[in-house]
Amino acid sequence: MTDQTIFERRESTVRSYCRNWPVVFEKATGAEQVTEDGERYLDFFSGAGALNYGHNHPVLKKALTDYLADDNVIHSLDMYTVAKREFLETFEETILQPRGLDYRVQLPGPTGTNAVETALKIARKATGRTDVVSFTNAFHGMTLGSLAVTGNSMKRAGAGTPLYHSSTAPYDDYLDGSTPDFGWLERVWADSGSGLSLPAAVIVETVQGEGGLNAARTEWLQTLAELCERFGVLLIVDDVQAGCGRTGRFFSFEEAGIVPDIVCLSKSLSGLGLPFSATLLRPNLDLWEPGEHNGTFRGFNPAFVTATAALRKFWADDTFAAQVQERSAELRTGLEEIAAQIPGADYRGRGLLAGIRFEDPDMAEQVAAEAFRRHLLVETSGADSEVVKVMPPLTISAAELQQGLDILREATTSTAAAAA
Amino acid sequence: MTDQTIFERRESTVRSYCRNWPVVFEKATGAEQVTEDGERYLDFFSGAGALNYGHNHPVLKKALTDYLADDNVIHSLDMYTVAKREFLETFEETILQPRGLDYRVQLPGPTGTNAVETALKIARKATGRTDVVSFTNAFHGMTLGSLAVTGNSMKRAGAGTPLYHSSTAPYDDYLDGSTPDFGWLERVWADSGSGLSLPAAVIVETVQGEGGLNAARTEWLQTLAELCERFGVLLIVDDVQAGCGRTGRFFSFEEAGIVPDIVCLSKSLSGLGLPFSATLLRPNLDLWEPGEHNGTFRGFNPAFVTATAALRKFWADDTFAAQVQERSAELRTGLEEIAAQIPGADYRGRGLLAGIRFEDPDMAEQVAAEAFRRHLLVETSGADSEVVKVMPPLTISAAELQQGLDILREATTSTAAAAA
Amino acid sequence: MTDQTIFERRESTVRSYCRNWPVVFEKATGAEQVTEDGERYLDFFSGAGALNYGHNHPVLKKALTDYLADDNVIHSLDMYTVAKREFLETFEETILQPRGLDYRVQLPGPTGTNAVETALKIARKATGRTDVVSFTNAFHGMTLGSLAVTGNSMKRAGAGTPLYHSSTAPYDDYLDGSTPDFGWLERVWADSGSGLSLPAAVIVETVQGEGGLNAARTEWLQTLAELCERFGVLLIVDDVQAGCGRTGRFFSFEEAGIVPDIVCLSKSLSGLGLPFSATLLRPNLDLWEPGEHNGTFRGFNPAFVTATAALRKFWADDTFAAQVQERSAELRTGLEEIAAQIPGADYRGRGLLAGIRFEDPDMAEQVAAEAFRRHLLVETSGADSEVVKVMPPLTISAAELQQGLDILREATTSTAAAAA
Amino acid sequence: MTDQTIFERRESTVRSYCRNWPVVFEKATGAEQVTEDGERYLDFFSGAGALNYGHNHPVLKKALTDYLADDNVIHSLDMYTVAKREFLETFEETILQPRGLDYRVQLPGPTGTNAVETALKIARKATGRTDVVSFTNAFHGMTLGSLAVTGNSMKRAGAGTPLYHSSTAPYDDYLDGSTPDFGWLERVWADSGSGLSLPAAVIVETVQGEGGLNAARTEWLQTLAELCERFGVLLIVDDVQAGCGRTGRFFSFEEAGIVPDIVCLSKSLSGLGLPFSATLLRPNLDLWEPGEHNGTFRGFNPAFVTATAALRKFWADDTFAAQVQERSAELRTGLEEIAAQIPGADYRGRGLLAGIRFEDPDMAEQVAAEAFRRHLLVETSGADSEVVKVMPPLTISAAELQQGLDILREATTSTAAAAA
Repeated sequence: MTDQTIFERRESTVRSYCRNWPVVFEKATGAEQVTEDGERYLDFFSGAGALNYGHNHPVLKKALTDYLADDNVIHSLDMYTVAKREFLETFEETILQPRGLDYRVQLPGPTGTNAVETALKIARKATGRTDVVSFTNAFHGMTLGSLAVTGNSMKRAGAGTPLYHSSTAPYDDYLDGSTPDFGWLERVWADSGSGLSLPAAVIVETVQGEGGLNAARTEWLQTLAELCERFGVLLIVDDVQAGCGRTGRFFSFEEAGIVPDIVCLSKSLSGLGLPFSATLLRPNLDLWEPGEHNGTFRGFNPAFVTATAALRKFWADDTFAAQVQERSAELRTGLEEIAAQIPGADYRGRGLLAGIRFEDPDMAEQVAAEAFRRHLLVETSGADSEVVKVMPPLTISAAELQQGLDILREATTSTAAAAA
Repeated sequence: MTDQTIFERRESTVRSYCRNWPVVFEKATGAEQVTEDGERYLDFFSGAGALNYGHNHPVLKKALTDYLADDNVIHSLDMYTVAKREFLETFEETILQPRGLDYRVQLPGPTGTNAVETALKIARKATGRTDVVSFTNAFHGMTLGSLAVTGNSMKRAGAGTPLYHSSTAPYDDYLDGSTPDFGWLERVWADSGSGLSLPAAVIVETVQGEGGLNAARTEWLQTLAELCERFGVLLIVDDVQAGCGRTGRFFSFEEAGIVPDIVCLSKSLSGLGLPFSATLLRPNLDLWEPGEHNGTFRGFNPAFVTATAALRKFWADDTFAAQVQERSAELRTGLEEIAAQIPGADYRGRGLLAGIRFEDPDMAEQVAAEAFRRHLLVETSGADSEVVKVMPPLTISAAELQQGLDILREATTSTAAAAA
Repeated sequence: MTDQTIFERRESTVRSYCRNWPVVFEKATGAEQVTEDGERYLDFFSGAGALNYGHNHPVLKKALTDYLADDNVIHSLDMYTVAKREFLETFEETILQPRGLDYRVQLPGPTGTNAVETALKIARKATGRTDVVSFTNAFHGMTLGSLAVTGNSMKRAGAGTPLYHSSTAPYDDYLDGSTPDFGWLERVWADSGSGLSLPAAVIVETVQGEGGLNAARTEWLQTLAELCERFGVLLIVDDVQAGCGRTGRFFSFEEAGIVPDIVCLSKSLSGLGLPFSATLLRPNLDLWEPGEHNGTFRGFNPAFVTATAALRKFWADDTFAAQVQERSAELRTGLEEIAAQIPGADYRGRGLLAGIRFEDPDMAEQVAAEAFRRHLLVETSGADSEVVKVMPPLTISAAELQQGLDILREATTSTAAAAA
Repeated sequence: MTDQTIFERRESTVRSYCRNWPVVFEKATGAEQVTEDGERYLDFFSGAGALNYGHNHPVLKKALTDYLADDNVIHSLDMYTVAKREFLETFEETILQPRGLDYRVQLPGPTGTNAVETALKIARKATGRTDVVSFTNAFHGMTLGSLAVTGNSMKRAGAGTPLYHSSTAPYDDYLDGSTPDFGWLERVWADSGSGLSLPAAVIVETVQGEGGLNAARTEWLQTLAELCERFGVLLIVDDVQAGCGRTGRFFSFEEAGIVPDIVCLSKSLSGLGLPFSATLLRPNLDLWEPGEHNGTFRGFNPAFVTATAALRKFWADDTFAAQVQERSAELRTGLEEIAAQIPGADYRGRGLLAGIRFEDPDMAEQVAAEAFRRHLLVETSGADSEVVKVMPPLTISAAELQQGLDILREATTSTAAAAA
């Protein structure tokens, strides 16, 4: 075991992943992380979704080192730079135009929670209303505005104050099909005596990455979009984790054919793990005063550069998306086979954001621990950590994927055997 | 003029600095920014304080490119990595131990507002109280928790909801000396009938970088620290802008000899403009549950690497601090000379975070615009943008400093002449 | 028409009933109100439920005048008085003991909203939780705490601020039977990821007097009580309008066989229309500090006196309750017959708190107006005033009841004919 | 000792006055309360200000019994009645016209807190702003809106939730003269960077009846009124306790010559201790929708009748006011003489709302207890119950006043001797 004493002595007890994976990582490429003493781990975690193209992708890395080599500007807030211009032009050409989307791009600072806070602010400003509806088991971030629309009670309690101006609605299938979709929202929004006023917005993840890998059905998302439009409620899609190709297309909502009013992007937007986020706004919602929202790290040019390279490399045509969809099908097959062996277990998720839910929450944590012992990195998800979450790089090969599935199968079988 | 149409077409109207400086920057070194058409600007802005060591400092740059060259891990959340270990060890040796400070380091995500949100959360959790006292004209960030302790009414209105659990007290000299310092807080905290309950914490900037470059006196800070200790109220110093050497020592509060319970660092912590922040906690306040606060970009290893390099380069001994203090004295002399020429104008600030306040707020904006025309980048500060803010790199040479002061003098004289 | 100019000149525009009934009342006995010019109106309104025993009931009136004749103390806050002792003893003997109920009596001030505010405060104090669940179309009062659990959007907007710490659940049959009762509450209370924390209490009216005369089914109330007990959530029954015999027993919840943790009483508690209210608390919830809730008019002794007289006169045995139940059956028959003539109209309510809901909300207001022209006082209820609300004195004779039903039938027929 | 067991068994522990005065009162006239076993107490408490004309004043009593004798309407919500017309006409002629005041009268329900909640609501609605400034040690009521502008921390904690949209400013002399009056409010209201937005209103008591009998100086009130007018902030005077003649004129603010935008009246408005309150609004603020604020006991006609009788009896000319001012001078002389004997004690208050503040808070409670043993009813006031509060009926004779002062002197001397 290598030296970890400084972490125990100086780093806050809030640290978390290191508790399940108590090794010191040093190097990483593609789907592999390597510790300082040379142990190799297959990475089905992808930096919690920030490394969709794997670690140290050579094309992105080269773009970055080229940029750095030449004393190009690194930090620029919201000044104009050559790197930002290239990013905006590439995003327009590669992502917006082919999909017929017309969004203004706000660069609110480099984190997902900043993109969400920005979305909530502009939704409230644009509508003049204060409440935002979020869904059971949602996760949108840790700053106070985002936390108010996040479901997890432990994280909410961390605020140390009440949380305001949010209300919760059931996510798809939350009530096990016993209730017509959106019957409640439709009724109370139309009823002036309901006690619930019309909200500014609804914020939704198409797949709940932290909340247990619940994936909303296409028709549920379509009905939601239609309901929002009918009542003049803005629809915010938080695509921080499910976006950037994770579910098989660039945006996770493309499959449902809906067009949100506001979209939050971050995590894999830079492609190389550099902090970067964006909030996309329908032009009629771009009602900001200059400087009304700001932040120091809005203009981190290396992230513009790697993001541009990633868009050009992976999203210039449909080849990459097709490959991701192929891997997704293989992953689903593999996970369903494993789940079939465990009574009560089932497949969750969509695309390469998928997993297995166990009836006994302890089992998911044990399977993840057993996988780690077998040098596979997978985390758990859900309010009770009841889901083993499988999130390999989108660039993973079919062989690597099978290798990881094999380890997961062994870990599951072994855990089940130990429990019996 | 180079092509800026994509910014107007696709970037949100919230963009701000680019409106005063409508050029496209490409390269930058030290105290100089260069546009794509080769125009050179002397930078007395320093990326709003994120570039204390200038642009593309060769030592920091080399550390980064060396790290990238070798497929070291870039993004790791709160896993253990070699780069994080080196940062923590260096921070302990270089910063904490020489100053006799004992803090736990929390890495809450890479932005200043995240460091502030974290500080507020833990202060509330640790005390079981909800309110936080902030000061007139404070600036602590744009996410909802930080915004609640920020003074600016335009930015507060951007929330679109009321802001909660903060109350405001007068900053040093806010009431022009008409009132004994802290008489109000001391009285209401002791009075159970005051309607103001004891707060969890007080959050303060030792110099208000956004709020008009008000600099608190040493005795005011000492009295505040004593008052907080007496009532069991936590003292948070937001050193995001004034820290990392900006006022002549690593922490801006060292001069007053106080020891805050919690310290927020960001901006120049990475040294090279990479997104990075830290919240320092007295060990008895490190009461987090694992994962109770999280965030994707908590483990951006390139920032650990450049931060480590910066600490070793600049803070291993007192040489650099002494040089900053020398430059600070020169800046003060220069600014006071300029201010002396304009009736009602006066020097504001401390260290290399200083400026000139004009009686007529319009004049500050005109001087900054005139400076830009003369290829000097300075911004304004204060609720009415009434202060020209001068924030050169800490590494600036005496000659460059004088050059910038000369331009500023000409800009001021020219503006005054035009107004007369 | 008599002189009404002073009202128009000096009384606030907030005045309301007088707009539908623009006459000046002078005298009143039993089920009759008389204007100053001698016009007689049959009263099926009963002072919005504050006159369950009719106007100027001779037994209650005599008790009051006897008390006043002899310089007995009128106003005493929460000092001990002979009149309060007699009220408490009589309430214990007549109401609590026969029903096997053990409540502490809090006298929080003389209005219903004060009883509700008190209930909410003690529920929060006792549980240490902040949120309270109320139901769609609930009405609990106009002060800020009660308003937060009231559904009507116009009244909520009157607050001029957001309303806090309440959430709304569907009342019985709100979603037209499409959803299992309490499926939502049960699920989110059990799910730590739901975003909805366990509330301090649920507050419910067994019949929604203002919200459209929705009457909860016995099994719905029982399931609610069971759910609250299972989760340790307090159950508050607001019996301000439905209590004091209005639905056929003293408490409206007796029929369902449930025992709330907290009960709010007011309106007809004094029997003669004198301001009076009480909050009943399970003894283990009586956790107040002395004086923690107060109010000037907590000890209005004339109300104690008439309340005591009313309890003795009407509630010493079951005779009166049986008579009210008989009248209730007659009222239901009569209302159902009228409703049967109008397509889409149906009976609403329970006991002598009943009415007719019309599909076209305008029709309810027209019927009430037409009734007034025929000298019958009935008001409307519901978010869109879509229900004609019939609330005669409990003491009404069978003949008077039929007389009023006849007028209502004519008014309805005439309105329907005019619309056709 | 008479039977008090029912109170202990059935009445909530929140009961308070009865703990200091553990006797059972039965009868009362003028300034005298009599227990059921015939013990007579001189009443310098006046029902906490609700009995300014003494107990059972014969003129008011006769008006009430005459009204009741004849089956006049008792309870009418906001219907028009003869009794309400007479009250409004008399209030206009006796109070408004002679003072040149033009107010609309809102009858919001019968308690002081309802009058305050109404004032806060309309101030917020009229200005579109949410915050209200109140003062240290203010008392405005126990419902949630009023509680938010009340200072006492024990009572605030009773809410069980945070309290919203209020901020606190120092009452006159709160900071012992160390600070210019209103320097803080004037500065922050003018400063867009202060973090404190312009409030809807300021609510003030001219004498703080519960908060320690602090009396604001005339010039302080005038400056406050001027400041509010200059900034477009509404001025609400809560005259619930200090109004209705208590300080020597009908309104307590007349002496300062200011005209509030909104005035709250209750307590002695009915004259005989009947629940009654009114909110007076400048006509341009009477922006209510019909029914936007309501309440069952808005139309308690017996209170209109006794209020009308009281206005006619006491306020038709200046005789009564002159007599109150005479008594006030005698009371002040007497209290100052007593205070002079105790080191650190001093006179507090104004008019017949006065008292003695002791340095040792325990002493005030001991003096009040000693007075009770000598058959004088006085209560304490202030956050630490540090003031003995003397509030005789306004109708008290000079001889009775001296008799009470004599008892108070003896109680004080005796307490001081025991402590020595």
